Amino acid sequence: MSDDSATTSDQNTDEHSTKGSYVHSGAEFKRDTNYINDRITADGRDGWPVEAGRYRLIVARACPWANRAIIVRRLLGLENAISMGICGPTHDKRSWTFDLDPGGVDPVLGYERLQQAFFARDPDYPRGITVPAIVDVPTKSVVTNDFAQITLDLSTQWTEFHRDGAPDLYPEPLRDEIDEVARRIFTEVNNGVYRCGFAGSQESYDQAYDRLFTALDWLEERLTDQRYLVGDTITEADVRLFTTLARFDPVYHGHFKCNRSKLTELPALWAYARDLFQTPGFGDTTDFVQIKQHYYIVHTDVNPTQIVPKGPDLANWLTPHGRESLGGRPFGDGTPPGPVASGEEVDPEHSPLR
Amino acid sequence: MSDDSATTSDQNTDEHSTKGSYVHSGAEFKRDTNYINDRITADGRDGWPVEAGRYRLIVARACPWANRAIIVRRLLGLENAISMGICGPTHDKRSWTFDLDPGGVDPVLGYERLQQAFFARDPDYPRGITVPAIVDVPTKSVVTNDFAQITLDLSTQWTEFHRDGAPDLYPEPLRDEIDEVARRIFTEVNNGVYRCGFAGSQESYDQAYDRLFTALDWLEERLTDQRYLVGDTITEADVRLFTTLARFDPVYHGHFKCNRSKLTELPALWAYARDLFQTPGFGDTTDFVQIKQHYYIVHTDVNPTQIVPKGPDLANWLTPHGRESLGGRPFGDGTPPGPVASGEEVDPEHSPLR
Repeated sequence: MSDDSATTSDQNTDEHSTKGSYVHSGAEFKRDTNYINDRITADGRDGWPVEAGRYRLIVARACPWANRAIIVRRLLGLENAISMGICGPTHDKRSWTFDLDPGGVDPVLGYERLQQAFFARDPDYPRGITVPAIVDVPTKSVVTNDFAQITLDLSTQWTEFHRDGAPDLYPEPLRDEIDEVARRIFTEVNNGVYRCGFAGSQESYDQAYDRLFTALDWLEERLTDQRYLVGDTITEADVRLFTTLARFDPVYHGHFKCNRSKLTELPALWAYARDLFQTPGFGDTTDFVQIKQHYYIVHTDVNPTQIVPKGPDLANWLTPHGRESLGGRPFGDGTPPGPVASGEEVDPEHSPLR
Repeated sequence: MSDDSATTSDQNTDEHSTKGSYVHSGAEFKRDTNYINDRITADGRDGWPVEAGRYRLIVARACPWANRAIIVRRLLGLENAISMGICGPTHDKRSWTFDLDPGGVDPVLGYERLQQAFFARDPDYPRGITVPAIVDVPTKSVVTNDFAQITLDLSTQWTEFHRDGAPDLYPEPLRDEIDEVARRIFTEVNNGVYRCGFAGSQESYDQAYDRLFTALDWLEERLTDQRYLVGDTITEADVRLFTTLARFDPVYHGHFKCNRSKLTELPALWAYARDLFQTPGFGDTTDFVQIKQHYYIVHTDVNPTQIVPKGPDLANWLTPHGRESLGGRPFGDGTPPGPVASGEEVDPEHSPLR
């Protein structure tokens, strides 16, 4: 799957990275899509063979790109094969940090800052320090931070370690359609909200807003009669859309001015989002408090007061969605995952699921 | 009617004035309520007798406090007795300005800046330049900018010039109740949204948010079974609530982080607001574009990019509200006002009424 429709530019800022200011006056927001793109594969072609216990997935619950990897790892039951380190919701210009861990140090890597794992790979690493990143534990260095490839490889390369009943999130016969849908979701929605929020001029904002809501209208129509984006089961495409939808009303609607309507005002999309939220792997990996803290505290050029809104009321995520009537088999021939792994639970105070 | 529950403090900023920065780190927002409080009365006790053609009401459509005066003047049919000058939606630190007028000059006063009328009154005028203000045309100097008293005096002192069928917005038997309701609306809602938006700390914001939504819940309950706030007709209390409600979703929800819910998610309040909006005098004096421009462009310490959101979609202001079933007589024994006076129409591009 290619994300090449986002232009690479060192002058702009990747949001899940830590490079500093976000809004560039007069400029449209362009995402830096230069990643360390080694792959961990079953055949080890890049020198990184699939191997249980060797790698550590570093995430921040706040980040939508990292949240994808948290969801996919859990749906596939890879918790015992790939450990997970969790950065706090706010970072400084240098790095995401392990401030949630005892002593502020990741217990496996011994690092305070994710930056250390990038510098272990390349002492002169010049780009943003992003999550998700997969770190080789023996060398404590980053293997890859190519978020789009990471989840696909969890699905296709780590099959040996999938749990019994793991769903196929990237089924062969549907890959072209998943790629096509996900590409439009990436450029127009996942990245589209940032294009609104980091617009450097009224004109670029206005254009970004129209692009975003044109795409949301397309999705609203697509999801009116079908339960999931592609086929009749949950796929990679749904994971990618979900993490943006979960952040829409708490963050993007106000902070990024994506305010034609709330998600709750788009009936099919809102029911679809609740359906997924109430499915094991989605809502139980979503931390609304960390999500809000991240955006409102880190983006000081958008929200200089750094005050985090108390709203919106989130209890409505648990209301009946009625999507079962559309049919669909959430996990196909598989089964839902069991409870969240011990120690990886979202703070119950940060979720309506408590 | 007293607004004395707002504390006076020179260190803080009155939003409808122009004194500079809005958010004071660590501090709760306090409204400066020191106004020039001369009154224009039928008996002329302060030296300013009611007199047709002598005074000019200066407003900005963006400002909720000024919008009250625009509504009341129109409901009472005082357009021919008191002329109106309209400042543009954005001002600088010195003053509201007449940038919407040809040549950027008010055609009656010959002023570029409202500040000039305050300095004509007092060359050392030390406080904020606020709208609404009433200017004595012969001396071109401000008589009063005491917004709360202005509308009451239009109702009670200018009766000689009211149109035939003008409603009684401040009926004697209901004044105590109107005062009581309006006082709570002022401290908790009209000013409550500013207390959220200009909070200088997370703690003061959190408290302000709880106060605001506690009051909105009270209003939601009060308005579930009765059409208007006090009695069965439109009163001053409704005017005072309306101008805040009209700004809630376009501005306060996102810009001021009043985001437990949108107005559209509070059924009784939303129907009540639409009922008033669709009543002559309310919606036809509401300029959503100027409203958004004012807040998002002027408050650079809240919105440093000065980008104005395109949303929300406003077509829903015209949907049926169903409030007629509650009874009530909007204008009591009076009648609705006729069309908006020529030259005073809201730009049709700025309103869903177009």
